[in-house]
Amino acid sequence: MKAAILTVGTEILFGEITNTNSVFLSRRLNDMGIDVLYHHTVGDNPRRLAEMIGIAFQESDIVITTGGLGPTQDDMTKEIACQVMGDHLVMHDDILDFIRNRLLAYKAEMSENNVKQALLPSRCRVFFNDAGTAPGFALDGPAGGGSTEKRWIACLPGPPKEMTRMFEKSVVPWLEELTDGCLVYKEIRTFGIGESDLETALLPIIDGQTDPTIATYAKNGECSVRVASKRKSREEAERAVDEMVDQVKKYVGKFIYSTDGEEYPLVVGNKLMSRGLTIAAAESCTGGMFGAALTDIPGISAVFDRSLVTYSNQAKIDELGVRPETLEKYGAVSEQTALEMAEGVRKKAGTDIGISVTGIAGPDGGTEEKHVGLVYIGLSFGNQCICRKIDRRIKERQRNRRHAVLSMFDMIFRNVQ
Amino acid sequence: MKAAILTVGTEILFGEITNTNSVFLSRRLNDMGIDVLYHHTVGDNPRRLAEMIGIAFQESDIVITTGGLGPTQDDMTKEIACQVMGDHLVMHDDILDFIRNRLLAYKAEMSENNVKQALLPSRCRVFFNDAGTAPGFALDGPAGGGSTEKRWIACLPGPPKEMTRMFEKSVVPWLEELTDGCLVYKEIRTFGIGESDLETALLPIIDGQTDPTIATYAKNGECSVRVASKRKSREEAERAVDEMVDQVKKYVGKFIYSTDGEEYPLVVGNKLMSRGLTIAAAESCTGGMFGAALTDIPGISAVFDRSLVTYSNQAKIDELGVRPETLEKYGAVSEQTALEMAEGVRKKAGTDIGISVTGIAGPDGGTEEKHVGLVYIGLSFGNQCICRKIDRRIKERQRNRRHAVLSMFDMIFRNVQ
Repeated sequence: MKAAILTVGTEILFGEITNTNSVFLSRRLNDMGIDVLYHHTVGDNPRRLAEMIGIAFQESDIVITTGGLGPTQDDMTKEIACQVMGDHLVMHDDILDFIRNRLLAYKAEMSENNVKQALLPSRCRVFFNDAGTAPGFALDGPAGGGSTEKRWIACLPGPPKEMTRMFEKSVVPWLEELTDGCLVYKEIRTFGIGESDLETALLPIIDGQTDPTIATYAKNGECSVRVASKRKSREEAERAVDEMVDQVKKYVGKFIYSTDGEEYPLVVGNKLMSRGLTIAAAESCTGGMFGAALTDIPGISAVFDRSLVTYSNQAKIDELGVRPETLEKYGAVSEQTALEMAEGVRKKAGTDIGISVTGIAGPDGGTEEKHVGLVYIGLSFGNQCICRKIDRRIKERQRNRRHAVLSMFDMIFRNVQ
Repeated sequence: MKAAILTVGTEILFGEITNTNSVFLSRRLNDMGIDVLYHHTVGDNPRRLAEMIGIAFQESDIVITTGGLGPTQDDMTKEIACQVMGDHLVMHDDILDFIRNRLLAYKAEMSENNVKQALLPSRCRVFFNDAGTAPGFALDGPAGGGSTEKRWIACLPGPPKEMTRMFEKSVVPWLEELTDGCLVYKEIRTFGIGESDLETALLPIIDGQTDPTIATYAKNGECSVRVASKRKSREEAERAVDEMVDQVKKYVGKFIYSTDGEEYPLVVGNKLMSRGLTIAAAESCTGGMFGAALTDIPGISAVFDRSLVTYSNQAKIDELGVRPETLEKYGAVSEQTALEMAEGVRKKAGTDIGISVTGIAGPDGGTEEKHVGLVYIGLSFGNQCICRKIDRRIKERQRNRRHAVLSMFDMIFRNVQ
């Protein structure tokens, strides 16, 4: 099956919003073996919207729209979907009740606009909205041109939170029925291997593979592998995915830190919380990014005590007890300083773990001996204190800082058992 | 004039990449008074690319493509542009020299693929690439269908860094010639006012305004106002923009912190660096985000000394000298604690400024008395120590944390003179 993704909203054509819905939908449709041929964005303009749906149907079996389902004058996706598929809007009483109950829960009044949201195509399949008031729907119709084939349109709300929840809960089952299969996927996250190395390493299992599908993605210094299978039964699909995940582990297992899509801060945070291991950090070049990432996790205060961002040498001496002789002899960016920072913060905070980072983030500040991109990570845990040196010679400050933070999580993940 | 933006690349249809090029181009084209009617994305497929350009030209005068200019087999934007506009590729010797010199600077060899990059349409206007090897170009051709009108296609490379630099340096002048006008724009950044309030406040000057154009954008808890003018001469456009910026200041001046698009960390960082004012921070609910944001700025070590992320009460006592009685009597999230944190870190670090934050980021952890979203910002500077209370009652952890960080910058910006 082939699909087109059609985003509706003038705000996107003004550049006010980044179109992340198309990224999400592309990934999930590709997981299901549905080829995405086009992304289109049109403004809140009925003629252009209708024409673009028509153009999309020339090659695609399915058109998925996001946006334009709200209750205002601008929002006309429902009307245009009816026009193209040959249907008309009717009041759906179950939806009206659903919206009324949602509003009651928020102690909000039902407005005329809210009532309008219960108007949906007469023969559509309704997708309830768990995170907002605008319902989505799917509608089929003839391909046209004398053909007996069918076409499908699925209209989803624009806000990403509403759209993604509706997709997982209602659209996936609908697509599974449509394609007569059950879809299961897993996202394997890795650290420490580049995308091309990852692809090369996995080539023997990627090559010629149709189900499960295997795809690699790179983002912000990390690579992930998505494994997806569509089979007649969920059990079969799950088994196929699990077997393929095992295969992936065989080839690149040492780089994997998660097989369910969880990112490093959450994986490490959960590990620390489940084992009741307390942690304190000493940061230099990352400026607080490690603490910021870890404290994204609600409830992390149970184990995270403090992070001391010691940017100046004096702060490293004052706060962490790094010895002035160490700074003088080896410099702030050195194995010795990283080790003293990790030990110092652990001792001061009285935590189970002390983690530290010191490096040259760039773009300037490097020397012949110590290049931009040189980073040391220190870890004090149990009765050992160890250090990892990273020497990537990359000039970009942001990339170096992000990589250093991920390396801190990696250092904990690999060494705290 | 009307435009369509056409992104070329299968990786976008797989969801591997978020299409930020279209956001950038939409904004800049709208600045210039060029209406963007559509965004399209097609894969590396010559037939679909050609068809989509044809479809775009049905309504648009200009099609801007990004991607598909690289030297590999997949990249065929040049060929298809020639096909649609009625031209053919020829070797451009000046480009060949340019590429050779670039590669020399990198001590890289010229490959056959690099030579191919100097093949461009015979009658195109070349856009040199400052950040990579693939040149871009613009090409015109007849509208077709017996019309005497013209159409234009501009083909730019896909990597955002190359594309944006090429756009500013070469595409803007070309568009200025095409539309016979000079474009000037400014981005005004505000904090502390919501987008709808901002729009309402500016309504008297937005309403019926065609040049300069005024548009508001909201992102990550901040709103910006873009003012753009296209006039016969650059001086005229600059004057028109400056006058409109003054108008905007009259209406919402107290919320403005920058009129040249600079974000808060950079504005505050530059202010501190230019005055030689040193700073230390004490963070709780933000977990290090303030330090992380400030240390994004290269060279900030001249004024930024340390940030103590004191997540636990014990850390607040140990590190900042917050009195246990204060924590006991008023709680960790209180004006008193925020003030003691700011004073404590300033005293300890011996800096000119001490800034602090303590709050309940959520989603849980609130009480009847202290809601999720309650945040206190403390500032110690000169001979005063002041506190700002923020009570937004928003449940989302990320939004509360981001807003708290911006509030810290705002607190410094407004009170450190």
